[in-house]
Amino acid sequence: MQTVSSWKSFGGTLSVHEHDSAVCGCPMQFAVFTPPQAANGPVPVVWYLSGLTCNWSNVMEKSGLQRVAARLGLMIIAPDTSPRGDDVPNDDAYDLGQGAGFYLSATQAPWAKHFQMDKYITEELNALVLSEFPADASKQGITGHSMGGHGALTLHLKHPDTYKTISAFSPIGAPSQVPWGQKAFAAYIGDDTTDWAQYDATELVAKHASGATMLIDTGDADPFLEEQLKPELFINACEAAGQSLNYRIQPGYDHSYWFIASLIEDHLEHHAQGLS
Amino acid sequence: MQTVSSWKSFGGTLSVHEHDSAVCGCPMQFAVFTPPQAANGPVPVVWYLSGLTCNWSNVMEKSGLQRVAARLGLMIIAPDTSPRGDDVPNDDAYDLGQGAGFYLSATQAPWAKHFQMDKYITEELNALVLSEFPADASKQGITGHSMGGHGALTLHLKHPDTYKTISAFSPIGAPSQVPWGQKAFAAYIGDDTTDWAQYDATELVAKHASGATMLIDTGDADPFLEEQLKPELFINACEAAGQSLNYRIQPGYDHSYWFIASLIEDHLEHHAQGLS
Repeated sequence: MQTVSSWKSFGGTLSVHEHDSAVCGCPMQFAVFTPPQAANGPVPVVWYLSGLTCNWSNVMEKSGLQRVAARLGLMIIAPDTSPRGDDVPNDDAYDLGQGAGFYLSATQAPWAKHFQMDKYITEELNALVLSEFPADASKQGITGHSMGGHGALTLHLKHPDTYKTISAFSPIGAPSQVPWGQKAFAAYIGDDTTDWAQYDATELVAKHASGATMLIDTGDADPFLEEQLKPELFINACEAAGQSLNYRIQPGYDHSYWFIASLIEDHLEHHAQGLS
Repeated sequence: MQTVSSWKSFGGTLSVHEHDSAVCGCPMQFAVFTPPQAANGPVPVVWYLSGLTCNWSNVMEKSGLQRVAARLGLMIIAPDTSPRGDDVPNDDAYDLGQGAGFYLSATQAPWAKHFQMDKYITEELNALVLSEFPADASKQGITGHSMGGHGALTLHLKHPDTYKTISAFSPIGAPSQVPWGQKAFAAYIGDDTTDWAQYDATELVAKHASGATMLIDTGDADPFLEEQLKPELFINACEAAGQSLNYRIQPGYDHSYWFIASLIEDHLEHHAQGLS
């Protein structure tokens, strides 16, 4: 692992790292905010999964999370949204290929060789972070935005003992039922829709609710609300499954980082409380 | 004036506007954060002048100021750093021409026709903002970063009755004595260095201190500290002139927006207190 950049921020450190990922078959970059409290020993960790087109920089530059994480003593990890590079397959569309990994394990050509983002994050990057940074393995939470908000929901539901706390901003609610998810799942996993359920939060929660309370915020001025996010599908599934859920529709807010910045303090407090 | 974009942010509104500037002879864009308190009447205003290469977006996207401004009830105005466009002269270097207006009135060709940023900000844009937004003309402060931190110092020193409160991040201390300033002043104002003093904060404060207390923060890991910023020159001039100054050297911080974000709360509180 190499350190690409490092800056002092709110008394802590924001750093960017690169490592050769065996799972993704390419170099991968991720960012870490280490709070000042880490000088005294391991601290709780919150994973932030970004949305379509993003990398580590969007949330670290635009959400203002460092201030809150420094106050609460949380480490924040921001992985990339896909494998990248000239040797990695891509697509001209913003919602497929590089920048659009959907936090799943692709089985179809040409994607399967590199696009293994769920395994990368839950196994390879998790082990790397726990070995290289003062992170408390027993206190991990996960959150994210849009495609990454949905990714956080699925990784929590499949690994509730790893990611004990969960929140999301503007998540896709049921990817199998909306254009973004249908396009990505068909390309990465194939046309047999029975294989999609393992990566669909609405399907996953229907089978097995987690013991955690989910905090989710979505803006009612979000331009993707009705066609892509469809919060009602996930809300209904949670209700049927007995999943504890605090889903807040925030008036006037859209899909942007202006929205995330406005609510990030609530989310990190939710994680800090659950991990304390 | 046209509204280019508008987003809800921390219960207030972040908006971007474009207008035809008579002073700069081209369309100009600027951003405004309007805090929730403005719904009840005019609020104090803080002007933020950005540094080399920046436009309104850097500070609005990366400093996290909206949270603090919403709490304190401050309107924030972020002008551009120069005139821009295909009809405006430019230079390949990052520190001359578009993005590098230095908040002065150019007298030399080819710059004089468009590069009149001090007059633009103190007169034309000031009048526009006061007429179009719920801003209290009697409660204005000014701040900025690097080239813009120096710009804030000079505009405050020349217009202390307009900009009653003043702070700066990592300002150039004495542009006449460092490469950035010497290059820009020679190009914009000409080789007669006696004409430079009117745009140099160290020269201005030596002639006439203001009644305000200046808050300035600069990081001791700033890569421009010794060659371009030279805080000691400005500190010495303030001391000789009896200018009230709180100049803090912040250990470990550099010239980036990670630094600005870490200290923005202190600066906006300084302005809010002075304008209350």
